[in-house]
Amino acid sequence: MYNIILANSALELIPKEIKNKIKPSKVYKYDILDANYHYKAMKFLKDRERRGRPDIVHVSLLTILDSPLNHERMLNTYVHTYDNKVLYIDPKTRLPRNYFRFLGVMEKVLKGYKNPLIKLEKKTLEELLFDINAKNIALLTKKGKVININDMKRYDTFLIGGFPYGEIRINEEGLNIDKISLYNKGLMAWTVCGIVCYSLYFK
Amino acid sequence: MYNIILANSALELIPKEIKNKIKPSKVYKYDILDANYHYKAMKFLKDRERRGRPDIVHVSLLTILDSPLNHERMLNTYVHTYDNKVLYIDPKTRLPRNYFRFLGVMEKVLKGYKNPLIKLEKKTLEELLFDINAKNIALLTKKGKVININDMKRYDTFLIGGFPYGEIRINEEGLNIDKISLYNKGLMAWTVCGIVCYSLYFK
Repeated sequence: MYNIILANSALELIPKEIKNKIKPSKVYKYDILDANYHYKAMKFLKDRERRGRPDIVHVSLLTILDSPLNHERMLNTYVHTYDNKVLYIDPKTRLPRNYFRFLGVMEKVLKGYKNPLIKLEKKTLEELLFDINAKNIALLTKKGKVININDMKRYDTFLIGGFPYGEIRINEEGLNIDKISLYNKGLMAWTVCGIVCYSLYFK
Repeated sequence: MYNIILANSALELIPKEIKNKIKPSKVYKYDILDANYHYKAMKFLKDRERRGRPDIVHVSLLTILDSPLNHERMLNTYVHTYDNKVLYIDPKTRLPRNYFRFLGVMEKVLKGYKNPLIKLEKKTLEELLFDINAKNIALLTKKGKVININDMKRYDTFLIGGFPYGEIRINEEGLNIDKISLYNKGLMAWTVCGIVCYSLYFK
């Protein structure tokens, strides 16, 4: 059994401090921060380059959940968000393919409405790793050591940044973390998710 | 150099015969058929279960274009559509991540506006295979023979259905096509694209 964690993911409700800067829109009706629609309002938001990209979580989850590794029930999938919420995504989840429908589902979950397949808890990345008893953790980053794809199986837990730029923020104390890279250039989160899932399944 | 072709893809302008059945919408402003928004109007459309899923093309192209195989310029990417148009997608293309922006780009291309990175031609799947001089063609289908991932390299051209259900429609006469499968269950087009691209690049 493997764990895959989208870490520090750019998925959150619209923060209170910019709510009054966002005009109501007929196209975008969701209480979820999206840089594509809230670009101006985000201008003075802290860490704005790491936030407001729920599309990254959407495509990454579409990739993970349809992978043979997940179909074989060999994978636990977690989304850890910028504001320290953790979503556990049941492997049977059939995520909406349409982006706006996805946002509709996520808005409800983030607001605390019960969903039979997606469970929400308030916790940090470090707490999550402790709770799932992660032993050998691979943190995927372009600054990591490039490893052979066949060596992925030595890890039980994979941390992949669910945001567009920068590094995963984590206190490594007491954790057994290897920083690894799949390629000599940066890759999108969904690409890394795909390569991890496929390389663990196919020999 | 490899070729990847999304075949019979569910990406097309709204067909004339149902145009009068679609009411103007404030959310969806595109002249592209999308079953999520045109479900009712598509009720009597021929082959409706194979049409109106541009989201499949979007996620598949996001997967293909960010793959290391494409970054290394070892891949030609084509989208062949239900109505026999072929889009050649330059490997340098930075596709919009936002679904609606993607539709905006595609609408223009399908209407014949010039795009420096996406070239449109009217042609059938068979004509495309002839034009690119495809020699050893793999057609990915769950009904195919399950092959070892390491044997993918014997093919130069990969046909993956860019639609939700059913089989690729092709006249195999004079073509050297193997029907192959990666897994014993059906997979989404983007998953197949990912596995093909990653297995050709990583040894």
